[in-house]
Formats: sequence, structure tokens, C-alpha cells
Amino acid sequence: MEHQKGGTLADKWHGVFGVICTPFGADGNVDEQALRRHIRFLLDEGVHAIIPTGSTGEFASQSEAERKQVVATTIDEVAGQVPVIAGSAAVSTRDTVKFAQYAEQAGADGVMVVSPYYCHPGQDELYQHFKTVAQSVQVPVMLYNNPGTSGVDMLPPLVERLAQMENISYIKESSGDMTRVAEIMRRCDGSMTVLCGCDTLALEMFAMGVQGWVAAPANVVPRLCVQIYELAVAQHDMDRAMELYFKVLPLFTLFESTGQYVQLVKAGLEMLGRPVGAPRPPLLPPDGPAREQLRAILDSLPL
Amino acid sequence: MEHQKGGTLADKWHGVFGVICTPFGADGNVDEQALRRHIRFLLDEGVHAIIPTGSTGEFASQSEAERKQVVATTIDEVAGQVPVIAGSAAVSTRDTVKFAQYAEQAGADGVMVVSPYYCHPGQDELYQHFKTVAQSVQVPVMLYNNPGTSGVDMLPPLVERLAQMENISYIKESSGDMTRVAEIMRRCDGSMTVLCGCDTLALEMFAMGVQGWVAAPANVVPRLCVQIYELAVAQHDMDRAMELYFKVLPLFTLFESTGQYVQLVKAGLEMLGRPVGAPRPPLLPPDGPAREQLRAILDSLPL
Amino acid sequence: MEHQKGGTLADKWHGVFGVICTPFGADGNVDEQALRRHIRFLLDEGVHAIIPTGSTGEFASQSEAERKQVVATTIDEVAGQVPVIAGSAAVSTRDTVKFAQYAEQAGADGVMVVSPYYCHPGQDELYQHFKTVAQSVQVPVMLYNNPGTSGVDMLPPLVERLAQMENISYIKESSGDMTRVAEIMRRCDGSMTVLCGCDTLALEMFAMGVQGWVAAPANVVPRLCVQIYELAVAQHDMDRAMELYFKVLPLFTLFESTGQYVQLVKAGLEMLGRPVGAPRPPLLPPDGPAREQLRAILDSLPL
Amino acid sequence: MEHQKGGTLADKWHGVFGVICTPFGADGNVDEQALRRHIRFLLDEGVHAIIPTGSTGEFASQSEAERKQVVATTIDEVAGQVPVIAGSAAVSTRDTVKFAQYAEQAGADGVMVVSPYYCHPGQDELYQHFKTVAQSVQVPVMLYNNPGTSGVDMLPPLVERLAQMENISYIKESSGDMTRVAEIMRRCDGSMTVLCGCDTLALEMFAMGVQGWVAAPANVVPRLCVQIYELAVAQHDMDRAMELYFKVLPLFTLFESTGQYVQLVKAGLEMLGRPVGAPRPPLLPPDGPAREQLRAILDSLPL
Repeated sequence: MEHQKGGTLADKWHGVFGVICTPFGADGNVDEQALRRHIRFLLDEGVHAIIPTGSTGEFASQSEAERKQVVATTIDEVAGQVPVIAGSAAVSTRDTVKFAQYAEQAGADGVMVVSPYYCHPGQDELYQHFKTVAQSVQVPVMLYNNPGTSGVDMLPPLVERLAQMENISYIKESSGDMTRVAEIMRRCDGSMTVLCGCDTLALEMFAMGVQGWVAAPANVVPRLCVQIYELAVAQHDMDRAMELYFKVLPLFTLFESTGQYVQLVKAGLEMLGRPVGAPRPPLLPPDGPAREQLRAILDSLPL
Repeated sequence: MEHQKGGTLADKWHGVFGVICTPFGADGNVDEQALRRHIRFLLDEGVHAIIPTGSTGEFASQSEAERKQVVATTIDEVAGQVPVIAGSAAVSTRDTVKFAQYAEQAGADGVMVVSPYYCHPGQDELYQHFKTVAQSVQVPVMLYNNPGTSGVDMLPPLVERLAQMENISYIKESSGDMTRVAEIMRRCDGSMTVLCGCDTLALEMFAMGVQGWVAAPANVVPRLCVQIYELAVAQHDMDRAMELYFKVLPLFTLFESTGQYVQLVKAGLEMLGRPVGAPRPPLLPPDGPAREQLRAILDSLPL
Repeated sequence: MEHQKGGTLADKWHGVFGVICTPFGADGNVDEQALRRHIRFLLDEGVHAIIPTGSTGEFASQSEAERKQVVATTIDEVAGQVPVIAGSAAVSTRDTVKFAQYAEQAGADGVMVVSPYYCHPGQDELYQHFKTVAQSVQVPVMLYNNPGTSGVDMLPPLVERLAQMENISYIKESSGDMTRVAEIMRRCDGSMTVLCGCDTLALEMFAMGVQGWVAAPANVVPRLCVQIYELAVAQHDMDRAMELYFKVLPLFTLFESTGQYVQLVKAGLEMLGRPVGAPRPPLLPPDGPAREQLRAILDSLPL
Repeated sequence: MEHQKGGTLADKWHGVFGVICTPFGADGNVDEQALRRHIRFLLDEGVHAIIPTGSTGEFASQSEAERKQVVATTIDEVAGQVPVIAGSAAVSTRDTVKFAQYAEQAGADGVMVVSPYYCHPGQDELYQHFKTVAQSVQVPVMLYNNPGTSGVDMLPPLVERLAQMENISYIKESSGDMTRVAEIMRRCDGSMTVLCGCDTLALEMFAMGVQGWVAAPANVVPRLCVQIYELAVAQHDMDRAMELYFKVLPLFTLFESTGQYVQLVKAGLEMLGRPVGAPRPPLLPPDGPAREQLRAILDSLPL
């Protein structure tokens, strides 16, 4: 796939991006067989891209060797069927470059990089960081703006500056601030493609012309996510898209309101007969009330 | 106009609602002639409804007599051409009822009521407040949710409860949280009509099916607001709507980012040769930098 | 009492300021007899000043006539025994001046003025507002900074500017940001006296040299508040002050965490056999859980 | 030093804890000689404890090998002169245990552990995390609560639960919420010692009985920090302590308001002729305005 800024839908990453969880075995280590099964499940259900070692993949709790194992296994299992964009974030610029270059060498189609966390860089520091990372690889870089998780916000003027880089072409917007979509479009024209990174704003973003959705819920209900995308973006049938969206919205709202994405994704898969093990501590399986809400919502869905 | 919940567009308030500023003379008192001229300007430019004594109308700085004068003058000047919905808020329930009943008797088509401010009522206290107000009049009540201004947030479950009241039919959503639109629609079905109360989310809300926009900028650029509405809602031409929206977005963003709605509306009208006087203190004409930004933006618009 | 900036403790307002609730009768109107009884109770328990028509006094829900009645009754009942500082806030500068001048003429020793609410003035607008109010009276003005309630924050540079005014001598600090105390002291030296307006920081402020506390809980437990003040400020016995403070802290924390000051003050007085009626709607008597917590805490106190 | 909960000052860590920066050379690697010089400087100026690999030490940007090198070098250089408490935080519980056990084996007197960052654990998940870490070592564990940095807040009930653990004896409070000090003291009695982790609240905490201060500014102005501690805690001379505190407060406020602790610490040391190299990217030397403010403040101090 040739990536050209301002190209058509077929030229660009689009559709539902499954930002996959990382299965762990009873020993707490990566369960490679479960990982392959999980990827196969999502591909069979029709997701349009796979993102390993993102936040939902618990990358920040993994060793360098584990992260490389997960990325390599994903690329091998996907086998070119859809794009693989490897989560490559780290706190330091040097480590981020290391992970991005590994992903490229391993055959990833692109890298996703959330802002450095914990150290709270400013806008200029973020600019230098992403510029350095982008210059270290050839593949497209997907910026990932999630101030709730990383603690820093990539403001529209920064995104506009970064859009000048040849291979910074996408931004996963997870700030929860819907005004960002139009503001980035207005500033960057076609040189920056906005992707939805906030499940409770997915249909809203599709209605504004966004054509991609990096979806943690796609681990649990991939087909429903794909159907919403197809109805809204491919078929332009907002009425039916909204009808389905309203059915699934309580699930997205549960994820969002508890903030327990990883915990609920893994518990939901277990409830649906597709166990992937527990999260890695400090994260734990969700407590009773959250489990009950999750089960009630899953029971209500047309799965 | 007969208001029936779940009715068609023609049955409902829709379009651009000019939430008008209140002109003050050099003596600091209401300038009735300027008020009539301003209303005439907005009607000539095609706004679909007029809302006097809202936040932009500086209701909270006015005496009871002034508020009544502004409401009565507005009804007289509009003369049935479009609906007049009178801002009727107060801190106490008893005062809110008083203003709502006055508006009804004076011939207003409805009342708009922001949450009681300063005293920070809880969700149950808000329920009782709005229920009492709604029961005191026959005309439709427009809820106005603006936590940034009033300090309290009307959460979706409260809105759902209030939607059971026969004449609580509309909510002006100004929380800035775009997820509210879908969540209220999902919970209330047709029994609560969401209106846009956040200018920087106007096109976003239209794209989700919202058909009304309570717009402070309509004081300054009424025709542009009406055009965006017509393109997006009446003609379903999102591409052209977005093109125009992107041109005006810097103006909306200036209002939003400074929070100086009243000050900038009045300064903008003066720049455009339609002076309405200064705001009432403690509000003052905007400072130099804000004025310069305002002038530069106005110069860039297709007025 | 002669007020001179930089004077000694005896020259200044100090001690526990009872910011009194306004009793309402069964008909919803001001209950003047209950008001007098309540003032008498606080004076008998040793409070050092009385503040009518503050936030806890529900000033924003009262008519102009009611506010004047409450202020005049308070001055009459106190009869010079302690200073009376009349809450004189309003949204507009003109109304604030009106209330401040009324208070002065009625014989108040000073006025307390919270920032204009709802309309969100900026720092310069606040400066002009307070300057105008201060110039309209001779008595000392107590600034009241409560961003949680008014929606605007009087930042230290603004406080420093206002400290230049001859009769702006006090600031009731209710921002909850403890750094403000030292920062205002550092900037203003003796020209601005900080008073505690955050009950859960009362002992903390005393430890930093603050010598006054505007206390809503003093409606319910005036003697305990006075004892904490006496131990910490007059006797410099921090150990015993802390011991007592820790006993009452759960009460202050309940007020703070629920935000239901008015509702809990009135419910607490009823529990202690000193009924003052219900709050004025939209405020309502506290719900079950809050009542139970309040009762349990009151039962635990050495009353 | 024998650590017993509820013991006297001599039994406990107290005084000024220098949470040291990590010098990097021109090649970007740890500069061990500069690290030793920096530690020697702080010891000579009288700090009472040294904390390597904390936030100011840029631990999150360092490899496992680098972190171990810094801890081992610090212990060697300090040579028992004062306690060394090694920052041992990580995202996963397993990595945190690994770093804590390394520190203990290397001879550290204790470990400091900030809440797991990025993954946003809940209160129960935090409890299990810290319990596991504490059980993995013998030395005392210092909890480090910094919601601004880690994204999660250790609320007082959680701190109370953790105080039951034998070797969880200290909490560095950096939430900025001054009410936490009294609330933790009230709940935990002597079983949890609060240390100041918010420089702009240092004197305030001393006034409330806190006897330790984990101070990033102690990298730049160690003697002044020690003097404030000595005046306030050892000599109980609040007047002179406050006089000095007010002189240094602008420095602390600059650090706090910009959030650029690491950047400003390193720039300040360079200005004072004690260069420690640049921060590790994404962090960069501070921009012009921040540098100028820093220089002006340093010039004003009695160094």
C-alpha cells in the first residue's frame, strides 16, 4: 500500500483497527498461542487492521523482549492480510526510536506512538520527539493523543506542525474533545488523517468524515464495530448506523466511565468463551459490580 | 405552533436561535430602540427564533423590571414572525416561576431556563426545580445545561427523568461534551429534542441529527450561521457546510477560548457598524489583544 | 474599632466569624424571630463576629427587601457586641454598590463581597469591580475568593493590586489552594489580612499565622470552632488544637465533600433542637445518606 | 537506624531529602563522576538523605542497567553518611519488585515507590501492588502519591489500609491537596509518617508537624532548604523560617507552575557553575523565558 498524503480511501489506512490485548498464561508470561487465536478471531470478524502493543496490549508492563515477541508474532499471524501498525511508545525518545525501528525491520506497516508519559514534555519537546521518531523510520507514523493516559495533550498547532513531516500522516484522537477533529482537519487539510480513538465518539467522528476507528471494544465485539463502520462510512446509512450504535453505546460507556479497558476486555472475552488470561498486575480482573454490568450489557447485544 | 413530542421538524422549534444581547445606552440603561433595531437585523438575516434575556443578554445583571421590559419589547418587535423563547432563569425556584409566568403572559412561545447558579443544587434538587417550573406554565420549557456557567451539570439520567414532563421538550446542550447528544437521544427517544448550545460543535451536532442551534455568534454573523444550518440540515450538503464552518470556526473558537461572549458580541457589532453599547459592569469592553483577534477574524469572513 | 493596615490583632477583625444561615418559616419567608434566636445562640457560644447574607445565608435566593431585612435585624440583635460584616454581593457592580451602601448606612462594620458569579469576569474586570465597590463605602471590604462557587478565581497578583485600596483589608480565602495564604502574605505584606474560608484548612491556616476563620460550621458547633481558634491562635497550643480539630474534621469534610453547606447546616441545627426551617428551593433538606452521616458525626462530638 | 512506627524523630527519616537529578554526559549516558560530585555537593550542604532514581532523577527514561548503576553509585558515594532511599517504581508490579529487591541487596536504606503510571490502577489494585512490593523487601517503603504525574491518586482510606503493613511507614505527599496531611495523620495516627512532596507547601506542612521534605529544589539550593527545615522544625522559629521561605518561594513556584522540574534543576545547576548535562529527550533544556525567570530568581537569592 502506497501512502500518499491527500490520497483516496483505498490509499489510506481505514476501517476498524483492532488494538489487541496481549494474552498472558497462568505463569504470567505472553501466551503466544492465545495471541494467535485472538488475532485470527478478529481477522475472521472483519477488522481492517491490527495494532499490537498499544495501551490495551499492556505494552508499558512488558519487557523489551516481550514487546518484540508480540509484534513479531502478530506480523507473522496476520501475514499481510491487513495492515499491522505496531505500538512503539516509550518514555524516552531513544527507546521509542528503538521500538519503531524494530517494528519496521520486523515488517510492520506502520507504528503508533503515544506521547511520552510520566515525564510531561511540553509542546516543543513533543515536536522534537515525534520528529526524531519519524525520521528514524520509513513507514507511516500514527500519532496517538491521549492526555488522560499520557498526561500531556497534543494541541492542534502542534499537530499542524507535525503534519509537515512526510511520514506523519495519522493521528488517533483520544482526548475526548470532539472539537479537535474539525480543528485538525481545518488546519492540516489532507496532510493529517484523523482516526477515532474514543469509542463513545465513534459515530460522531464518522459523521464528520473520519474513516478509521482504533477500537479497544473490537477485541470483544469486532463484528459489531465493523458493522457500525460499514453502515456509517461505506453505506452512508446514518439511521441504521445510529440504531446499532445506540445498542452498543452502553458497552463503550462502561469502558470509558470505569477506565478499565484492559480489565474489561479480558473479562468480556472470558465471558464469551474466548479466554485470554488475566491482566498483568497491578491491573487485576474487574471487581463484582463492573463484571455484572459487563455481563448484562453483553447479554443485551446481538452477538 | 403545536408542540408534540416526537413530531416532525415543522412541529418543532428548529434552525438558528438568536440569543440576543441587550443593548445599553450611555446611561447604562436598556436602550429599547437599539434592541428593536438589533432584533430587526437578525430577523432580516433569517434567524429562525429569538431568545431574549439569556446569558448573552446579561439577564443576571438586570433588575426584574428591566428583564420584563426586554422580554415585552422583544415579543412586540418580533410580532409573531418567529418563536420568541424568553430566558427565565433565576437562583431560586420561586423567582424562576415568576419570570416564566411573566413570559407566558406576555406572549412568549416558550421559556429557556438554565440551572440555578451559585447555589449548586444536586441532581434531585434540579429535578424538583425544573418540574415545579414546568408545572407553572403551559408553554414548552427549554432546559439549558451549561455547567461551565452555572456550576452544575444536568447528567443524562436527570434529563431522561425530566423528559417525562409534558412540556419539557428541549435541551440546549452547552456542556461541551459531545457524547451527551447521542446519550440523550438514546435515553429519551423523541421525547427530548437536543439543541446545540456550543458553537464549536454546531456542525458536529447537525451531523448527528440535531436541528437547532442556540447561537451567540448569530448576534454578529447571523447570515453565516443560517447558511451553515441550511447547508447542513436542509440541504444535507455536508461538504459545503463544512467549508463554510471552517471559515467561521476561528470566531467561535475565540468566543469559546476567552469566555468573553458578551464582550466580544458587543465589540463585534460595533466594528460592523451596528453599535449596541457596552456590557454592564463588571463586564467591560474586551482588551486590546482580544479586540485585535476579533477584528482580524471579522475581516477574513465573507460578510 | 479603628482599622489600620498592618495593625495588631486587637485592631483587626479576628477569631471565628459566624457566617449565619437565614431561618425561613413554614411559609417560606424570613423568620425574624428564629434569626434573632440563632444570632443570640452564636453570640452566647463566643463567636467573634457575625456575617449575615453570605452564601450560607442563601443571599442569592433572596429579594432585595429580604436581604435588607436580614442585615438590619442582625445589626439590631448583635447590638455592637461583635462586628457585623454584611454579605453584599451581586452579579452587577451597580447592585453590589447598592447592597454595600445599604449595609454601611444600616450600621454594618464592614461588607463581604464574593466575586460576581455567573458572568465570569476576568482579572481586570474583577479589579474594576472591587475598586468601584470599595470606593462607594467607608467601611472595610472583605474580598471573598471562592472559585468553586462563583466560577472565577482571584489570583494573587489581583489580590496584590486590590490591597493598594485603603479599605480593602481582608480576603476570605476559599479556593482550597493552601499555597494562596503564603503567596498573598508574601506579596501584600501587612496590607491584606487573610482569613480562612475553607473549614478543612482551618488549623493549617492558623499554623501559618492566619487569625480569623469565616466558618459555616459555626452555625452548628460554634463552641468547638471557638475552642479550636482559642487553642491554636490565643494559646499557641497546637497539640491540643489538633486533637480537637481531628474530632471535628469529619464534619467539615462532610460539608466540603457534599457541597451541601446550607442543607446540612439547617439539618444539623434541627437535629440539635434548634430548628431554623428548610432551605429555599431549589435547595432541599439533605437526602437520607447525608443525614445519617451528619447524625453519626454529631453524636460523636463533645457537644 | 531502627525503624519503629510511632518512634521519635531520631528513629525516623527526617529533614531534607535530596531527590537527586541524574547527570548525563555529552554522549547521553550516565556521567558517574558528575553524579558523585553532585551527591558530594548535597552532602556538604547538609541534606539529611539522598534519593536516587526518582522523578527528578529521570528514572523512567533509563534502562534497567542505568538505574542499577545510579543506585549503586549513590550508595557507594554516600557511604552511610545519610540514608539512601532508592526510587524503585515501574509500571508493572513484577518490575517494581525487581527494582526494590535490587536496591535492598545493593544496600539502600529504603525504597520510594510512586504509583504505577500510564495504566491507571484503581484503589484496590494499588493496595495489592504496594502490599506485594512491601512484602518483597525488609527495608521501609516510602509511598509516593503524585496524581499529577502518575495519573492516579492514593486516597486517604487506601493510605490507611497500607499503613497496616509493617514496613510501609512513610508517604511522600505530592497531590498539592494540603488537607491530606491532617487526614492521613488523623486516620493513621503514628503508623504513617507524612513527608512533604510539594515544595510550595513545605513550610505549611512543617507547621502541621511534618518533619521531612523530599525536595527537588535541594538539587540547586540545598543549603537554603536545610535552613528552612532547621528554622521551622528544629528551632521552632516560624517567623524566621517564613522570612526565608518567602525569599525562595518564587523558585518553588516557577518549578511548580511550569512543571519543568528536571529541566530547571539542570539549567539552574549549570547557571551556578555545577553543570550536570542536559535532560534526556524528550525533555530538553528550558526555553528562553523560563531560563530568564530562573536566572532572575537565582540572582535574588542569598546563595
